[in-house]
Amino acid sequence: MKLIARSFDTDSSEPRVVAHYDDCRELGIKQMDRVRLDAKTSQVAVVSTSDAVKKGEILMPPQVMSDIGAEEGQTVDVVYSPKPDSVKSIRKKMDSQKLTKDEINEIVVDIRENKLSKIEISAWLTALYINGMDIEEMANFTQSMVNTGDKIIFDRTPVFDFHSLGGVPGNKITPVVVSIVAAAGLMIPKTSSRAISSACGTSDIVEVFCDVKLDASEFKRISETVGGVLAWGGSMNLAPVDDMVIDIEYPLGINPRAKMLASILSKKLAISATHLLVDIPMGTGTKVRTLEEAREYARDLMEIGSKLGMRTECAITYGDQPVGNAIGPALEARECIRILEGNTHPASVIEKACDLAGMILEMGGIPDGPTKAREILASGQALKKFREIVEAQKGKKDITSEDIHTGKFVHDVKAVRSGYVHSINNKDLVTIARAAGAPSDKGAGILLFRKKGQRAEKGDVLFQIYADNRAKADRARDIAIKLGPMDIEGMLIKKVRDPSAPKDT
Amino acid sequence: MKLIARSFDTDSSEPRVVAHYDDCRELGIKQMDRVRLDAKTSQVAVVSTSDAVKKGEILMPPQVMSDIGAEEGQTVDVVYSPKPDSVKSIRKKMDSQKLTKDEINEIVVDIRENKLSKIEISAWLTALYINGMDIEEMANFTQSMVNTGDKIIFDRTPVFDFHSLGGVPGNKITPVVVSIVAAAGLMIPKTSSRAISSACGTSDIVEVFCDVKLDASEFKRISETVGGVLAWGGSMNLAPVDDMVIDIEYPLGINPRAKMLASILSKKLAISATHLLVDIPMGTGTKVRTLEEAREYARDLMEIGSKLGMRTECAITYGDQPVGNAIGPALEARECIRILEGNTHPASVIEKACDLAGMILEMGGIPDGPTKAREILASGQALKKFREIVEAQKGKKDITSEDIHTGKFVHDVKAVRSGYVHSINNKDLVTIARAAGAPSDKGAGILLFRKKGQRAEKGDVLFQIYADNRAKADRARDIAIKLGPMDIEGMLIKKVRDPSAPKDT
Repeated sequence: MKLIARSFDTDSSEPRVVAHYDDCRELGIKQMDRVRLDAKTSQVAVVSTSDAVKKGEILMPPQVMSDIGAEEGQTVDVVYSPKPDSVKSIRKKMDSQKLTKDEINEIVVDIRENKLSKIEISAWLTALYINGMDIEEMANFTQSMVNTGDKIIFDRTPVFDFHSLGGVPGNKITPVVVSIVAAAGLMIPKTSSRAISSACGTSDIVEVFCDVKLDASEFKRISETVGGVLAWGGSMNLAPVDDMVIDIEYPLGINPRAKMLASILSKKLAISATHLLVDIPMGTGTKVRTLEEAREYARDLMEIGSKLGMRTECAITYGDQPVGNAIGPALEARECIRILEGNTHPASVIEKACDLAGMILEMGGIPDGPTKAREILASGQALKKFREIVEAQKGKKDITSEDIHTGKFVHDVKAVRSGYVHSINNKDLVTIARAAGAPSDKGAGILLFRKKGQRAEKGDVLFQIYADNRAKADRARDIAIKLGPMDIEGMLIKKVRDPSAPKDT
Repeated sequence: MKLIARSFDTDSSEPRVVAHYDDCRELGIKQMDRVRLDAKTSQVAVVSTSDAVKKGEILMPPQVMSDIGAEEGQTVDVVYSPKPDSVKSIRKKMDSQKLTKDEINEIVVDIRENKLSKIEISAWLTALYINGMDIEEMANFTQSMVNTGDKIIFDRTPVFDFHSLGGVPGNKITPVVVSIVAAAGLMIPKTSSRAISSACGTSDIVEVFCDVKLDASEFKRISETVGGVLAWGGSMNLAPVDDMVIDIEYPLGINPRAKMLASILSKKLAISATHLLVDIPMGTGTKVRTLEEAREYARDLMEIGSKLGMRTECAITYGDQPVGNAIGPALEARECIRILEGNTHPASVIEKACDLAGMILEMGGIPDGPTKAREILASGQALKKFREIVEAQKGKKDITSEDIHTGKFVHDVKAVRSGYVHSINNKDLVTIARAAGAPSDKGAGILLFRKKGQRAEKGDVLFQIYADNRAKADRARDIAIKLGPMDIEGMLIKKVRDPSAPKDT
């Protein structure tokens, strides 16, 4: 059928075209069927039927219009296109069957080329969440995710990399780890993400003091000359299918294990990593609750890594409360730089950063890694390397922690009684920090004055809320008071007594 | 945030509103989050972010605009709205847990009120497909589907009903069954559906000779006065959630068992049926492949029916090839009416219709049901009742089979060799009939001249293709030749010999 092309962009994540009911009926297609659009080149798109479109016209996103080489108002040829085979493979996974390498690849390619609708991708992720994948399937999945994006090949090897499963707020160790490892002479071209549902991702922190949107050639050049880089992975086309399905995972609140592992490893393989360390924070509120679960993640990551020729080690770390005291882009950036400047507080950040950097050094053949990492930090070599990276990424030359500006609107949240901090609710802290504006307002976040096990007297400041504007500061404070993210109790939590004993009166 | 409302309807099945990236960021919402829109009344809608919308404006479907009482260009208040609890219940089913009555009801209500996105409904259906429901959950699911729609209460009881699981082409028995049952004095207010992926639904057939779009009061009046009715269920608001999820099931090609059973029973409960007979066609190409599977369906239907106070019986029927000879709206209508007129061919249609009508008569306390059904058919009482129904539904008075017009463009498909019809592929026949224009072109379809086990000589007509226009007739013929839906072989299919015996040369 010949229809006149009209551009309209309602939803960039699904190249859906919209045609009139009667035209669709004539074409023999229903809502959510596919058509092939032919102009200079052709493309397949999912169809939405409507009576708001004029008969004889077809609405399409500007990207689709440009892809097929059609101009506004031009006639394009529209014909029915059958479901892609990948839909059958999704059904197969729904039926709990193992998928072949080709079947997995077709699904990934079809997501990449926008040939699957959100409904189909949602079914795929749900089936993955419920039925999972074995190691071989996950390795094939990872490889397909790599192959559908760009790959960065370095002139230097080996290539070291580091990743944290996340889920623990205030986990700002990456700039410290990368600075130490690069200062030791190993190349660590680190890509990071921005926060999706957390308060702050590594890229949100780094963006406070330098550019994170590097293209592939800058990324390569800085890595090879400086030895380390702190880039936002989203600015390069690395395993892009991962980013494409996040829009579907987010509303469902799921992150199927197979997809999560493939996503981590594909981003690393895409930058040609030969050695990878994965940090698995464990604790309530993180993605991994128990040691057994953490070990399973570690085993799977190492097995898949090994199948794909990437030496992978894992560190299971303490994630029951935030790492360090700061949560939010600028607050975390300042805490990081202070540590690089020689500040010995908070000790938990230094310990975690040096232990993990040490594991990477040992993978690179440097003995006594953790000790060596502490020496590099204490000697100022890590700060020097950090400043080289920042300068290479167009940040301030000789940056100091004084250059970081945190939110101007600050509220103190105080203890309403005396006692010990029995628990800190990570998720509540994230909710409060986000209410304050993090991660998009760089100055927003939380600064903790008490951690687990510490004593607070009534009226002591437990934490401060920072925000870039008053309304958000007030909103975050109200939420903080409602949630009460810190539990303060006496040492005696509950009296358990012989029920036959006389009762207190 | 105050935004100016602009009407735009891209997709009537999801009340998605579209706002500018920057406004969404300011509101703290992401793609697929929800907002509450406040004008005269308020409503929650899923948000799509775009840069094609003007800042300060929000696009919304006309229905949403009218629901909240906003005018084009008016300012509406837009605030973040959290995920509904039903999303958590969907997660629970993904985790293979049993859902409570309230949880199931929330999901159904939220689908009804457009509070769940397609992504979420897709995850729900996928989880249902994989993890299923037990009898109690299915009964609760059914009841919620009934409660979210209108209910028809008759002044007469008992109320008899009939349903076929479908999947077998040419299954035009419903008008005959309804006419016999109503002629016997039992009230059978039958609602039917149109074809979704099949060649022809009962409503597609009935629409050839009378009106099927009845409102609730006409439906009630005709049932109570004539005793039978042949209405399209979609014209009344009966268990409407079922129709709402079909748009999601269709692209996935799934029909989760729990949803299918709840959907059947809810449509029947909504018209206050007290006695229900379900036809379960069994065979290759139908929904039910084996006797064991058919028995499971029957057991579940009867158990759920009993929990909901509806006496349910099931008939497992032969579905390995089409019922009768005609496939397609007008062709099936003509075959039906000829049988009512006393034609004794095709015997398979008469036998199935009378046996099933007989079961309903027996549920109604009439002994020797199948014999009685045959008497009613042979005596012309069924034809008389049929004509009363047709007239009540604004069809031609004293309709005869001569009044039905089939497609003018006819192609013969002939046997390319002599032999016996070993198998008939139901799905291929559906594909051919649809290519010819069925079900939307009323005259289109297939007329079979040979059935399974019958002999055809080379050059004999195996079947005819009917179409309302030449292009579709030709296209269907080409597809028929390519598919070859009938397998013709000699009686000897394969020689199996002692391998040590001398070979043929």
